[in-house]
Amino acid sequence: MAEPKTMQELRKDPIVGRWVIIAPDRLARPQGVSEESELSTDGFDPFLEGNEDATTPEILAYRNSGGPNEPGWRVRVVPNKFPAVTIDGDLDKRGVGIYDMMNAIGAHEVIVECPHREMNMSRLSVENIREVLWVYHDRLVDLKRDMRLVHGLIFKNKGARAGASLDHSHSQLIVSPIVPVTIQEELNGSKSFYDYRGRCIFADMIQQELATESRIVLESEHFVVFCPFASRFPFETWILPRQQSSHYESITKPMVEDLGNVMKTVLTKMELGLDDPPYNYVIHSAPFSSQDLPHYRWHIELFPRLSRVAGFEWGSGFYINTVAPENAAKFLRETEIDEI
Amino acid sequence: MAEPKTMQELRKDPIVGRWVIIAPDRLARPQGVSEESELSTDGFDPFLEGNEDATTPEILAYRNSGGPNEPGWRVRVVPNKFPAVTIDGDLDKRGVGIYDMMNAIGAHEVIVECPHREMNMSRLSVENIREVLWVYHDRLVDLKRDMRLVHGLIFKNKGARAGASLDHSHSQLIVSPIVPVTIQEELNGSKSFYDYRGRCIFADMIQQELATESRIVLESEHFVVFCPFASRFPFETWILPRQQSSHYESITKPMVEDLGNVMKTVLTKMELGLDDPPYNYVIHSAPFSSQDLPHYRWHIELFPRLSRVAGFEWGSGFYINTVAPENAAKFLRETEIDEI
Repeated sequence: MAEPKTMQELRKDPIVGRWVIIAPDRLARPQGVSEESELSTDGFDPFLEGNEDATTPEILAYRNSGGPNEPGWRVRVVPNKFPAVTIDGDLDKRGVGIYDMMNAIGAHEVIVECPHREMNMSRLSVENIREVLWVYHDRLVDLKRDMRLVHGLIFKNKGARAGASLDHSHSQLIVSPIVPVTIQEELNGSKSFYDYRGRCIFADMIQQELATESRIVLESEHFVVFCPFASRFPFETWILPRQQSSHYESITKPMVEDLGNVMKTVLTKMELGLDDPPYNYVIHSAPFSSQDLPHYRWHIELFPRLSRVAGFEWGSGFYINTVAPENAAKFLRETEIDEI
Repeated sequence: MAEPKTMQELRKDPIVGRWVIIAPDRLARPQGVSEESELSTDGFDPFLEGNEDATTPEILAYRNSGGPNEPGWRVRVVPNKFPAVTIDGDLDKRGVGIYDMMNAIGAHEVIVECPHREMNMSRLSVENIREVLWVYHDRLVDLKRDMRLVHGLIFKNKGARAGASLDHSHSQLIVSPIVPVTIQEELNGSKSFYDYRGRCIFADMIQQELATESRIVLESEHFVVFCPFASRFPFETWILPRQQSSHYESITKPMVEDLGNVMKTVLTKMELGLDDPPYNYVIHSAPFSSQDLPHYRWHIELFPRLSRVAGFEWGSGFYINTVAPENAAKFLRETEIDEI
């Protein structure tokens, strides 16, 4: 049976409906697929101001001076040099026997968060972090006009053990023609709750967390930061807006101002309290195609990489967390930092 | 709001319904929750024949000689010294506001696969591997009589980077009062397919894989081994029985005989072809409470740990796999091994 191949495909597991990007690396031999080692901190930095030629041409930059791909920028967006999805072509959705697939169309971009060589987002100024948050917004607003694309996922891998391949502080954006399964499950679960209870589960969570107090890391005008009741990982931390809003790209200026402070505070607490851990964060946001959804709320999930996800978790989706979220939240609450 | 605590709890995420075991380690400080380093291979081995006193008292052993907790065994089962679930107590299912929880009741056992210090299951004799497979069977048959328990998950972490904390070849069993979410999703998805198409999705997969050929690693009398169409990880490999059977504990003697050969062959190919990688395998099997399910089939999912699961995957359940399963299967097919 012939199964036509392109270099990059989206393939759907026929049992559970999970989409996978198959993005073969033409240069990688099987032996080359090895564990990443620690990042070198003294090598060439393609994200440094002045090295603009070392990246693919920029898509967006906030600038003090200079033209495209010249120095003078503050935050800069470039296409990922090794993209998991590509912007050119048709989706060509197709079935092959029981399997479903389509071309891996989409955008895979890198947000370079600062022109100087800083590894920790926590050490960027609050104003710098706010501009990163605005860049996230601007890229989503731009990309959602492409009708082939359905969802945008913004995420950050900090440190080699969290999947980063360069140490200069950066985040990534993948906009794709499918809704990632975790987001879909959140949409389904929160919709069921809304239909049954008539309320937003995220609003109920905030209400209960504020009443319980024990899992709260910090509160700000627009956000509640807490370690969730059923945390999968030690020190898993969520940043949840107080006001209903399902799409990150609907963020307002007062929220960005506030979130810059919140991000810097939480990341600094983790850096100081947990010995500068590798970490990931992911912004969970509703699909482009929907208007504001009353049952869903965008939020940030932040995971320091303190323990491996072992076999039990990989196979079952059933997690063992050795740090109770109440203890994690208390530790982070009590980790003192200098005024930011 | 008071939320009563026990040392170990099962907690359910209220949005997506994912259960998490919260098993705080009383001795671990936050700083102690660090990445595991490589396993030492010259330290004390509590699983070695003669060191029976170093483990908790055995639950089961296949023996040539000796009494319980004495030398003379071939395969031995002991309770995990740091169990994620415990066998004593009531479930005490309860709600706390919007959250659901219960006590983490269950069994967490370690299957010591050989009396001598061997790190690689691939180097055990076929007969030894068959006895390990029989021990899996015997423990499930015994534990499913406990009406509090709903599901048994057998898994193996090989190598520190796959989550192992001891190098002596061993596997683990966690029997719990809930169905892990990944198994539940497989049950739901395969049930939908069965209701709609009137066939078992696993049978259709085998049929298409055998017709396509490109993802087949090997075939035996009772099993088909292949890299699945939507593989999440490089060299992800599934071992699927040809005959319908939803519960591993229904395995027959001819199947065990055959599976011993298959396991040794596949693990040896991975050891030789992929430079002795860390790996995990998990046996997916139906809940105890059901009779044989026509829509589900037990199987083994095997993942060599060749790449990290980076931020994108953690947050989204959306995987990027850099090795096409067709290439992985071809590589494993063509990896030659000595006659086993």
